Amino acid sequence: MTVDINGAAHYLLAHDNYMILTHAHPDGDTLGSGFGLCRLLRDLGKKANVICNDKISSKYDYIMLDNEDFEVETVVSVDVADVVLLGKDVSREYGDRIRLCIDHHGTNRLKAELSLIDANAAACAEIILDLAETLGAQITPQIADCLFTGITTDTGCFRYSSVTPKTHLTAAKLIERGAKASLINEIMFETKTVTYAALEKLALESMRFYFDGRCAMITVTQKMFEESGSNESECDGIAALPRQVEGVLVGVTLREKEDGSFKVSVRTRSGVDASEICARLGGGGHKNASGCQLDCSLDEAKQKMLDAIGESL
Amino acid sequence: MTVDINGAAHYLLAHDNYMILTHAHPDGDTLGSGFGLCRLLRDLGKKANVICNDKISSKYDYIMLDNEDFEVETVVSVDVADVVLLGKDVSREYGDRIRLCIDHHGTNRLKAELSLIDANAAACAEIILDLAETLGAQITPQIADCLFTGITTDTGCFRYSSVTPKTHLTAAKLIERGAKASLINEIMFETKTVTYAALEKLALESMRFYFDGRCAMITVTQKMFEESGSNESECDGIAALPRQVEGVLVGVTLREKEDGSFKVSVRTRSGVDASEICARLGGGGHKNASGCQLDCSLDEAKQKMLDAIGESL
Repeated sequence: MTVDINGAAHYLLAHDNYMILTHAHPDGDTLGSGFGLCRLLRDLGKKANVICNDKISSKYDYIMLDNEDFEVETVVSVDVADVVLLGKDVSREYGDRIRLCIDHHGTNRLKAELSLIDANAAACAEIILDLAETLGAQITPQIADCLFTGITTDTGCFRYSSVTPKTHLTAAKLIERGAKASLINEIMFETKTVTYAALEKLALESMRFYFDGRCAMITVTQKMFEESGSNESECDGIAALPRQVEGVLVGVTLREKEDGSFKVSVRTRSGVDASEICARLGGGGHKNASGCQLDCSLDEAKQKMLDAIGESL
Repeated sequence: MTVDINGAAHYLLAHDNYMILTHAHPDGDTLGSGFGLCRLLRDLGKKANVICNDKISSKYDYIMLDNEDFEVETVVSVDVADVVLLGKDVSREYGDRIRLCIDHHGTNRLKAELSLIDANAAACAEIILDLAETLGAQITPQIADCLFTGITTDTGCFRYSSVTPKTHLTAAKLIERGAKASLINEIMFETKTVTYAALEKLALESMRFYFDGRCAMITVTQKMFEESGSNESECDGIAALPRQVEGVLVGVTLREKEDGSFKVSVRTRSGVDASEICARLGGGGHKNASGCQLDCSLDEAKQKMLDAIGESL
């Protein structure tokens, strides 16, 4: 059943002993929303913990909380659009016990007793701030740091088309309440690990142009992972690089997996539909960001992509 | 004489036939403020033109206006902190005729009849919006595009420590009035020229680490400019790269000039004073971003920088 912001606020006030679920491969929005909500609930005198299926990067240390010991009664999820996104362990333990689902994905299909979905929110953290205000809770500097982290990471630092006037108003409120905005932005957007920087260098060296510069392609091989010391967990940013070159309408990243197959990311500028290109190869996604899997050699994978892109250009 | 926002608004209403001066080597803030103010004045029935000493990059085409033909009576400057920053030709023609100076640099020392300075504004465009509101002017989508461009470019897309709650409130208002925020951010931050992308690749290949990874140094030689087809006008972004690597406290960029000497940019993280390092070699600047000139060989320049940095680390 869907619920509005007042309904969700009442629900949170009426219950206790919360376990807050974040999604696997955690990002700044699920963690910022999770720990922000956890702090809010604790400040209201409730017991609350956060759980994540996967290891949380140390760059999020400033928003983390230690878990407390109590028996879980009420399970809430944040920024989780589907039960499979919880990851195996969390899904097994809590997947069928979710009471309140808080999310900003219009495609949300998580089964929960109550669902608070706002697809207009650029980040789930925007909804958590709405909840906090409805609850009349105090936004401490620590909560502001959590929610600012969610908003800035899910919008690429206010860069994406999902940003609305409300996103900026929320950011203004959070900085007013003490969010260390420029420090958070420095950690999230101005810091590359040594291994990622080395991988990026190798990836840029691999960049090739096709269709008179309208397509750029980058390759990330297992050998490059070995050489740089980097790994899959830290290389999501690579996919943005090929499209950044002026004149490029389609940016492609071929990432070799351990089994030798390729995970392909396609990023397009407006006018070219990335999901259409990927659909030709069994994949899909959004208009400007899509992906597919190719189980063949590198040369074959490149050719398949160029054929699929050629039909769209 | 300093003037407040009401005084500046009254002055603009009481005069006509404006020439708006922008600074040389124009950036998004001086252009967005200039053309934004020009559009405002024209919408109020005034005659107004914008002038810039240097060629304006085509990426700003969407905010440009054609100049009209009339005799200039009132000279206004935007985002110009010093008369030398106007550039030679504009300075010669208008430098001693500035009636109203509108700027956000606390260090402003431009001579003008009236000065409206707000050092708390992250961009001059924030002040232009204040002026527009005080004038009761309509913020058209075109004006919103101009002012949003100023704000986003002068804050590195809302990333810098100069960003205040008001910066975000201003952005919210401008998007509300029709600013094409995500398109502007794509043009300004997600687009590299082919030649710059090639130069960046060469520069990253030159990166070396010192002092246990606390210092990273990049070299840009004349040979790299030749090889990539790039030039000095488009490579300001290079200086940010070395500091981005995790653990790096001091990022250094040595850029070879045509005469064989080196322009050095130093970027530091908090805790290390870039201006102190550069002062040891006759340069200066801000705490986190400074520079100096070195007239010696590349090897000597590197050693001089490492010696100066060693004293600070």
